[in-house]
Parts: sequence; C-alpha cells; structure tokens
Amino acid sequence: MVTISKDRPGVTLVNVFRTDPARQAELVALLVEATEAVMRHLPGFVSATIHRSLDGTRVTNYAQWRSAADFEAMTRHPDAAPHMMRAAEPAQGFDPNLYEVVESVGAAG
Amino acid sequence: MVTISKDRPGVTLVNVFRTDPARQAELVALLVEATEAVMRHLPGFVSATIHRSLDGTRVTNYAQWRSAADFEAMTRHPDAAPHMMRAAEPAQGFDPNLYEVVESVGAAG
Repeated sequence: MVTISKDRPGVTLVNVFRTDPARQAELVALLVEATEAVMRHLPGFVSATIHRSLDGTRVTNYAQWRSAADFEAMTRHPDAAPHMMRAAEPAQGFDPNLYEVVESVGAAG
Repeated sequence: MVTISKDRPGVTLVNVFRTDPARQAELVALLVEATEAVMRHLPGFVSATIHRSLDGTRVTNYAQWRSAADFEAMTRHPDAAPHMMRAAEPAQGFDPNLYEVVESVGAAG
C-alpha cells in the first residue's frame, strides 16, 4: 500500500502519458514491466502506481522517490533508458514533472 | 494520511494545471481553499492532495472519490463552480482525467 503525506521527505513524479485508447493496455503493461524489472531495484525508489483513465486516453504514473537526485540518477541509468523508450513508443506524448506535496485534505466529519 | 491501493473501490482524479511560476503559489492556495471550503463536504469525497512542481510550472491535484458519479455530481454542484472558476484563472491550462489504479509497486528487497 502506498501512502501520501506532506511530512514524508522525498519527491513525487507525476507523468501523464497521452495515448490512443486502442493502445492504453499495452502502455500500462510496459510501464508495469519497467517498474518491476528496473525501477524498483534502483537506489531511492519508494513506489510507483500506474493509473489508467476511464476514457482510455491517458495513463498516469504516480511515483515516489527519496530525492530529486535519485530520480535524476535513474534517468541516466543504462538499464532504465531502454524501458523508458519502449514505454514512450505507444504514447502520443508525456509530461513528466517532479513535485512536492503541499497539502492533503480528507473528507469532513 | 492518504493511501493508494488498487483494492480500494473508487476513482482517482489527476488534474495537472500549467501555470506561470510567478502564480504557482496563488494557484496552490486557491486549490487548497476550494478543497477545504467545498470539496471535502460533498458526498463521495475521499481525499485531495495538492502538489507543486519543483520547477514552478505545474500544480497537480490528486483526488480520490467514491465513484465517478460522485465526482460528476460535484462538477454540477452550485457551490463548486465558483471555486473551480477561480482556480482556473491563474492557470494557463488544465487536464482533468478520472482514473482507476492498475498496480502499485514498492521498492525491492
């Protein structure tokens, strides 16, 4: 189970991939495979959660890393590049950004 | 604390706002205010987490709702519209999509 807390140190990657609905399942499978085979073994990886949009046009990776430096090191790692390129192929575009959590709000009452 | 699990029922909104870095803090404040004042009181709201990108160009809302129907009802609620319009003003664009969680992966070992 993944937890989100503004008190947890670290950074969050939110990467929104646009895709043809006909290729959404393929893109999901590639991202799960890349996470299982490579990402989770790299220093500073905390978690990754793959989401598929209900309308079929998006796949979003919500991933937590110990630090921005660990994330940047992953992007330069030779094992990561082939997986990232394969995941990019069925996508029509992607928008990766690193974030910090500002605030979490639960339901009232 | 917010938790993510593929076994939890419900839907996830991921809404990426693009913004001028000079207005990022204003956009964050409007989204937190809208969540506190309105969203968390509506039926089916589970949580919302507001994130700011380290480069200043994005604000992302990661929000959990009990169902797509509850989320859609929020978009039609008279209390929600003014807050959503105020949050849209300092943004240069936004990309709201509803998702389901496919898989969460933690660190190896």
